[in-house]
Amino acid sequence: MKEITPHGGNLVNRIAQEEEKLEVNGKAPSCKRLILNRRAIQDLEMLAVGAFSPLEGFMLEEDYVSVVEGMRLKDGTVWTIPITLSATSDEVKGFKKSEEVALYDERDILLGMLHLEQIYKYDKEKEAKFVYKTFDPSHPGVEYLHSQGEFLLGGKITLIRTPEHKEFKEYWFTPAQTRKIFKENGWRRVVGFQTRNPIHRAHEFIIKCAMEIVDGLFLNPLVGETKEGDIPADVRMACYKALVEKYFPKESFFIGVYGAAMRYAGPREAIFHAIVRKNFGCTHFIVGRDHAGVKGPLGSFYGPFDAQYIFDEFEPGEIGITALFFDNAFYCRRCYEMATVKTCPHSEDERFSFSGTRVRELLKAGELPPPEFTRPEVANLLLSWWQGVK
Amino acid sequence: MKEITPHGGNLVNRIAQEEEKLEVNGKAPSCKRLILNRRAIQDLEMLAVGAFSPLEGFMLEEDYVSVVEGMRLKDGTVWTIPITLSATSDEVKGFKKSEEVALYDERDILLGMLHLEQIYKYDKEKEAKFVYKTFDPSHPGVEYLHSQGEFLLGGKITLIRTPEHKEFKEYWFTPAQTRKIFKENGWRRVVGFQTRNPIHRAHEFIIKCAMEIVDGLFLNPLVGETKEGDIPADVRMACYKALVEKYFPKESFFIGVYGAAMRYAGPREAIFHAIVRKNFGCTHFIVGRDHAGVKGPLGSFYGPFDAQYIFDEFEPGEIGITALFFDNAFYCRRCYEMATVKTCPHSEDERFSFSGTRVRELLKAGELPPPEFTRPEVANLLLSWWQGVK
Repeated sequence: MKEITPHGGNLVNRIAQEEEKLEVNGKAPSCKRLILNRRAIQDLEMLAVGAFSPLEGFMLEEDYVSVVEGMRLKDGTVWTIPITLSATSDEVKGFKKSEEVALYDERDILLGMLHLEQIYKYDKEKEAKFVYKTFDPSHPGVEYLHSQGEFLLGGKITLIRTPEHKEFKEYWFTPAQTRKIFKENGWRRVVGFQTRNPIHRAHEFIIKCAMEIVDGLFLNPLVGETKEGDIPADVRMACYKALVEKYFPKESFFIGVYGAAMRYAGPREAIFHAIVRKNFGCTHFIVGRDHAGVKGPLGSFYGPFDAQYIFDEFEPGEIGITALFFDNAFYCRRCYEMATVKTCPHSEDERFSFSGTRVRELLKAGELPPPEFTRPEVANLLLSWWQGVK
Repeated sequence: MKEITPHGGNLVNRIAQEEEKLEVNGKAPSCKRLILNRRAIQDLEMLAVGAFSPLEGFMLEEDYVSVVEGMRLKDGTVWTIPITLSATSDEVKGFKKSEEVALYDERDILLGMLHLEQIYKYDKEKEAKFVYKTFDPSHPGVEYLHSQGEFLLGGKITLIRTPEHKEFKEYWFTPAQTRKIFKENGWRRVVGFQTRNPIHRAHEFIIKCAMEIVDGLFLNPLVGETKEGDIPADVRMACYKALVEKYFPKESFFIGVYGAAMRYAGPREAIFHAIVRKNFGCTHFIVGRDHAGVKGPLGSFYGPFDAQYIFDEFEPGEIGITALFFDNAFYCRRCYEMATVKTCPHSEDERFSFSGTRVRELLKAGELPPPEFTRPEVANLLLSWWQGVK
């Protein structure tokens, strides 16, 4: 049984072996040092385990510019999101090219080394325009960009210590591990589902549609940094577990978390999410309406299908994972089942279609969303959480 | 918008232009002649309109042997079902290579010409073994094979007159026409569904699952020769129309008939069906459980998933159309929706799953199959038909 080839050809592994760890621990105190924020730590880990293959570190200038402007690495490989390490002028004071920078977390724990090759200035406005398609600082991706230091540090990394996973310990897997698991399960075709929300029936329907044509589901919720207002990862994980327990055959799915931050870059992030899931061993990837999008004061930053159309800008072989494009789903009283506008001919009046806003209103009023919208097991968890928040 | 490439590269068109028609009509009376049976007439038409592209006529010996033994034409193109024209020694008496044979129907209407290149003997047992995987004469494919004459006539054909379509006149389209229609509809991705049965909810579910990930459905019921016991095409067409009228959005599907005979060759016919639908312009093709299979006295002739596994024997680019593999679907009381074993974790007791036999029993008793199994509009048509048959 042939696995899907990782992006760029090979699965990257930048986790230090025992001997190297000892060596690095020894020399780190005499190296330049940098303290990473949460997002940088998440990227460091994703780079090290090969989730971002073929990247072996934070981007050098030529790759960065090529990705921002043309959605490809310098060598032509498709890549849509900059993976960069920023620093302020204070932080890089005295840093020299070709030296090693020890990377720490806020509690001063040594996580890894950056084999610094370049320190370069970059154009935030240009990145905002090309990657996020907006200059609006209320876009969470643009907002983060503006909070970054004015320099980017490029170079390969080595991970010395896996960042501590306080939550969902048993749900962290490297791409090498998930690939092995899918193989052991006998899954030739695996569909990946990215989510940062509880799974209501609309998404359950889309996931199950996809599952019908593959061998297994990799339910891969993002637990990295998300914006304020998103439902916390622990509540979501409880909902996922309750859902699959009751409504998914045990042998048909595998849950593992995805530890990187949301960028909210819509179309570009859809390609990025697909590529990352290919690295985890998925052959198919679900792209719904407004994938990785976000609303601003003037409505959505992206058109509802932009994240699907963007796949057409590449040859299928260049992405290498099959994207499955879905529209929004709803329960239709006259179909007596879940459907979308692609499959249901009936009028709006027959359709249960709930907005996030409407659900929050119900929860606020202490009411359960109806079973046509959410499985009761999930609805109960959301209600308890909401009542706790209040 | 790029269309899917026909099998072998180009859409064949062997329909004579007006001038050629006149010329052929003039010379036909002085040519050798052959009367075609129903299946041969159907194949003649499919060849002429390009449904069997890249074939331009009935197979020559080298292609025939290569297809039987290795599922490829002599030049390596994947092809799994022999498309041959058989004749008895009486019929071919006096036939010579490189002459033209006028092809007539039973009422002596001139349909076309065969540009005879080869008359060859063939091994029926070998064809039975390789193509149908059985020697059992109760297999309808093998039965037909044994009814054939002992010679095969190979050569390109020209169609002079489209065989009369007594039924469903408005549902006959050539691949060139369907390709144009899909393009006009703006469908980049089109899923083809082959059927020789009424569509119950199980198949509706599978079709709709597939529709969710494409732009449109080509509902392509086979109306060519089928075995005794299959539900007649006119009853089925009435059921299809009733179903789509009520349960499919108008802009999401297109119905056209497929005019060739069922071979009941299971796995090999699944590949063949997929290739033909690619010629009609489909990018995706549904392959369910036991596709194109048939039951004999000892049960099914093929394993339930053989028609799916066979696709793995080829490189995806060789088939060129994406096969979507489904399991049997049912209504589950605890999922509150249609599902398959891939997506429903509940027990058999919760599932409405009806066999064809059970449906016939209900109809026989004058009862409607339940709405979880068949849409009421379809159930009513089947009941009326059954009462008429009685």
